[in-house]
Amino acid sequence: MRSLQEYAAMVEKCLPDALMSLGDIPKRLLEPMLYSITSGGKHIRGTLLLSSCEALGGNIDEALPYAAALEMIHCYSLIHDDLPAMDNDDLRRGKPTCHKAFGEDMAILAGDGLLSAAGEILLRESCKCPDSRGARAGYAIFRRAGVTGMAAGQTVDVTSGSEKCSTQLVEYIHLHKTADLLTAPVEAGMILAGADEKTLACGRKYGRNLGITFQIVDDILDVCGDEAVVGKKVRKDRDESKQTWVRAVGIDEARKDAEECTRKAKDACAIFDKDGFFADLAEKMLIRVK
Amino acid sequence: MRSLQEYAAMVEKCLPDALMSLGDIPKRLLEPMLYSITSGGKHIRGTLLLSSCEALGGNIDEALPYAAALEMIHCYSLIHDDLPAMDNDDLRRGKPTCHKAFGEDMAILAGDGLLSAAGEILLRESCKCPDSRGARAGYAIFRRAGVTGMAAGQTVDVTSGSEKCSTQLVEYIHLHKTADLLTAPVEAGMILAGADEKTLACGRKYGRNLGITFQIVDDILDVCGDEAVVGKKVRKDRDESKQTWVRAVGIDEARKDAEECTRKAKDACAIFDKDGFFADLAEKMLIRVK
Repeated sequence: MRSLQEYAAMVEKCLPDALMSLGDIPKRLLEPMLYSITSGGKHIRGTLLLSSCEALGGNIDEALPYAAALEMIHCYSLIHDDLPAMDNDDLRRGKPTCHKAFGEDMAILAGDGLLSAAGEILLRESCKCPDSRGARAGYAIFRRAGVTGMAAGQTVDVTSGSEKCSTQLVEYIHLHKTADLLTAPVEAGMILAGADEKTLACGRKYGRNLGITFQIVDDILDVCGDEAVVGKKVRKDRDESKQTWVRAVGIDEARKDAEECTRKAKDACAIFDKDGFFADLAEKMLIRVK
Repeated sequence: MRSLQEYAAMVEKCLPDALMSLGDIPKRLLEPMLYSITSGGKHIRGTLLLSSCEALGGNIDEALPYAAALEMIHCYSLIHDDLPAMDNDDLRRGKPTCHKAFGEDMAILAGDGLLSAAGEILLRESCKCPDSRGARAGYAIFRRAGVTGMAAGQTVDVTSGSEKCSTQLVEYIHLHKTADLLTAPVEAGMILAGADEKTLACGRKYGRNLGITFQIVDDILDVCGDEAVVGKKVRKDRDESKQTWVRAVGIDEARKDAEECTRKAKDACAIFDKDGFFADLAEKMLIRVK
């Protein structure tokens, strides 16, 4: 296994390569796409995909385009999420958001372009794959990102502002908006490595609990106002219009729940975590609020 | 071979079925997606996919999800194209556009949802397919819809309003914005039926020329102002801000070019057009301006 930083660097490098591999993209479309995919971030999703594949003895070079596709999906969701009709954010990671830098029309098209590119890459890799692993890994990614996954969570998040905050509602949003896109890379990486069903089930449980921890911690940081945390988006909506775990259960309970999810994630990864990489990653998610 | 109407009816029916096959979609997301995919239209792309598959002896039931996915991609592009930041259209096929009916945020999400659903369906079908035909057909669709295909054409269309109108520029827009998404179904249908490379090349040539005819005819109808043509979108932009073939070469030359493209399409389909279905379809594209 490599370090978090090494995996992240591999993802960072493969992203523009994967985009350029698609052929002759018009400059006006390529620019906002490149701007958005190269504007920092920890590339945690791509890192999870590569490391999950490598932990089970898979070929990391084969996994790179899948990691790139998944990061493109994450990136498209941020671009569209930032639009004036959605969260209306001017800054992301300290830089102007895509629509601030390139206009609203180009931000819509760049987001569409990144999601299209992800599908194109995954289907192209599936054609190359001598068995069904490629298609199954790609399917896991699109399923988790799609209308019963991330897009479902995003919809409920956007449309439930005025609803009564309940643990059930917030759980649905966290599970789909956030945890699904952290479960997808573990699933996809393991499928590429030829994992059996039992290992896959543990991988899914790990991803889900990692994702829920991530989002609870985000909710806590929102309330605590720790805007200096690296990579964290500064939210405008620190009001009562967002459904958050802190609103649902209170801050002390939220902290306990994050710790409990981290424990579950560490339990789940035990069977594939040879040198503690995945347990460390789970701890890192939590440490931001410790 | 069946009639155009029969294929269109099959596509119309399989679209909501394909969407529902994905599982539990939140009502707030499902509604605008269903509204948009069931709001009429001739389903020409899905029809082309089913008929191309059937013409070469392929299994039409196997082809249905691919036809649905392609129509979802077409539909997402219309929803996003209609947004205030893009064409800002209030009506499509006589009904309020998606953002007028459901709000801008939900129109963005519904478009994203349809593109995601298309990818999910194509990757799921690729998993089921015992050989690489499924992935190859899906790849053909996403490639033509993507950042070197439809999304590229759309970008150049949106960003070139102030540029000098040239045949080269308009050709690029027509080829990618329109013809690519009419070539994709012929390619995908034929791949599913196991076509050889020579037949595929003829299919691509047919789709390309059909698509260019379609768009030139659209440009002519825009100028002639025939808003009564069934299924035709009433454009607001009958000014000089759009790059059209009529602007590039004049109306008489545009008519001649449409006829020439139709002839090329009919030539190209000869080797797979047993009972004249494809030649008739090419004539129907042209007849709107005869």
